[in-house]
Amino acid sequence: MSILVVGSVAYDDVKSPSGSVKGILAGAATYFSLAASYFTQVRVVAVVGEDFGSEQEQLFLKRGIDIRGIEHAPGKTFRWGGTYGENLNEAKTDFTDLNVFEGFQPRIPKEYEDTEFLFLANIQPTLQAQVRRKMSRVRLTGCDTMNYWIKGALAELRETLKLVDVLLINDTETKMLAGEANLPRAASKVLAMGPQALVIKHGEYGATIFFREGAFGIGHHPFRAPTLPIEEVKDPTGAGDSFAGGFMGYLASQKELTREVLKRALFYGGVMGSFAVERFGTERLQSLTREEIDARFQVFRELTHLD
Amino acid sequence: MSILVVGSVAYDDVKSPSGSVKGILAGAATYFSLAASYFTQVRVVAVVGEDFGSEQEQLFLKRGIDIRGIEHAPGKTFRWGGTYGENLNEAKTDFTDLNVFEGFQPRIPKEYEDTEFLFLANIQPTLQAQVRRKMSRVRLTGCDTMNYWIKGALAELRETLKLVDVLLINDTETKMLAGEANLPRAASKVLAMGPQALVIKHGEYGATIFFREGAFGIGHHPFRAPTLPIEEVKDPTGAGDSFAGGFMGYLASQKELTREVLKRALFYGGVMGSFAVERFGTERLQSLTREEIDARFQVFRELTHLD
Repeated sequence: MSILVVGSVAYDDVKSPSGSVKGILAGAATYFSLAASYFTQVRVVAVVGEDFGSEQEQLFLKRGIDIRGIEHAPGKTFRWGGTYGENLNEAKTDFTDLNVFEGFQPRIPKEYEDTEFLFLANIQPTLQAQVRRKMSRVRLTGCDTMNYWIKGALAELRETLKLVDVLLINDTETKMLAGEANLPRAASKVLAMGPQALVIKHGEYGATIFFREGAFGIGHHPFRAPTLPIEEVKDPTGAGDSFAGGFMGYLASQKELTREVLKRALFYGGVMGSFAVERFGTERLQSLTREEIDARFQVFRELTHLD
Repeated sequence: MSILVVGSVAYDDVKSPSGSVKGILAGAATYFSLAASYFTQVRVVAVVGEDFGSEQEQLFLKRGIDIRGIEHAPGKTFRWGGTYGENLNEAKTDFTDLNVFEGFQPRIPKEYEDTEFLFLANIQPTLQAQVRRKMSRVRLTGCDTMNYWIKGALAELRETLKLVDVLLINDTETKMLAGEANLPRAASKVLAMGPQALVIKHGEYGATIFFREGAFGIGHHPFRAPTLPIEEVKDPTGAGDSFAGGFMGYLASQKELTREVLKRALFYGGVMGSFAVERFGTERLQSLTREEIDARFQVFRELTHLD
């Protein structure tokens, strides 16, 4: 099964205690599509500027990613710069130059219209809803968002959430969206807004999936997957998008979407996020093998499973 | 097998978004001993004042806890008051009246000298070391500490850590003790100070145990246990001590101390911590059954285990 991701392609400058890099190809759609490419056929809708050429295309093409949906616009590609301190949980943004991303109007190529899995990376909620409505054959839609839209475009975001099957956000975003400090109660409130399942990403502590009653099977228990305690986190940028890529990519590779499949997908999300942070930018995600991924899946299992 | 806990008995005033209570019997040794009493025979060394009588003793005696080691001193029992905001992770201390606890000199009754498991709750590190040295038949020693001693009595604490088998502290304490922001690297540094295993408590995200190479079996992988996402946390006070009680109590009930046993103990720690926070003070810990505990153990397993 194929999956379509709609989101940003960007050049990043990143500083962390492990070093610094400038102008590396990044962005949510880039991290997502590389991570998902180990599980399924990936298609991308994004916009880039004149500073994106065949060298950058190779990053995607080597992983078999379909980039016919990457629009080339006059001007420069989105650029972002950030610095991580010793506490790697949050970046201080040094600059954000939206450039061609500012006027992004996602256009879905005809060849993409039969896509059955969709991931709406973090873009303006009304654009997310427009894309979802155009994709009439979609079986499952995943969605990301951020504090900026929760604060500034809540009404639009709530409309989008009615069209979404799985929302993937972090603890702070969940509490803010629900207006509720207790996490399981906040999760219930968010699920009442539309999604069948809510994946809450806890950074270095893993992630928890909460299900709507009756969604993807019976029962009402949440499920938690770990991340690996990593000795050297070089660059946390893109961890969440890589998580989403592993999670959605694994779902798109499965025949049936049962709770057990979603639980395994949560493990694969953690696995891909853990690989992403080991190197700057997308370096680690460019040259993995499915064997390495499944070996780490086993490590995650041993990390949490009693015999 | 029996277990001895040395630590505080206190009266607490607690305010949280769920309500408030005044003058309830609490303290690390109280939470610990109640939690551990569901697994093994518990003995307590602590000091109380003249405001502690037969009514308070009943709380321990009903659970079969041996309180011959609770010393009655002239004056008042330790009193603490704290307030939790919407974010329940940390209390604002309203007052601390050490009272008789200020001059606490742990005295071990003769009848306790054959105890094989020891838990040194959070008291001055030199007192912890003195107790440990007196207990010549101990097979395994668990230990807690806090930022106050890490900052103010580091040399003494490092001496104590040489005598300890399992240290149970939180993320912040681990990083501060190691002088290292990365958690797995900090864990390695703490293990090099003496303990065979380090349990890092992550609050609502569960706990991770790191092993010294070769300790309790082979391998070098850490292990993570969850906590239950709880809809209403009434009072987080004592969660860590209840965790320690479940963890150490389970260990004391087992014949062999293998890694698999320590992993299960980590689950039982989370289980007892999750019960503790459901009611104010020790209320929930007073009237549990082993069946309720094992039912929640199963919930924890389902929360994290793939089929």
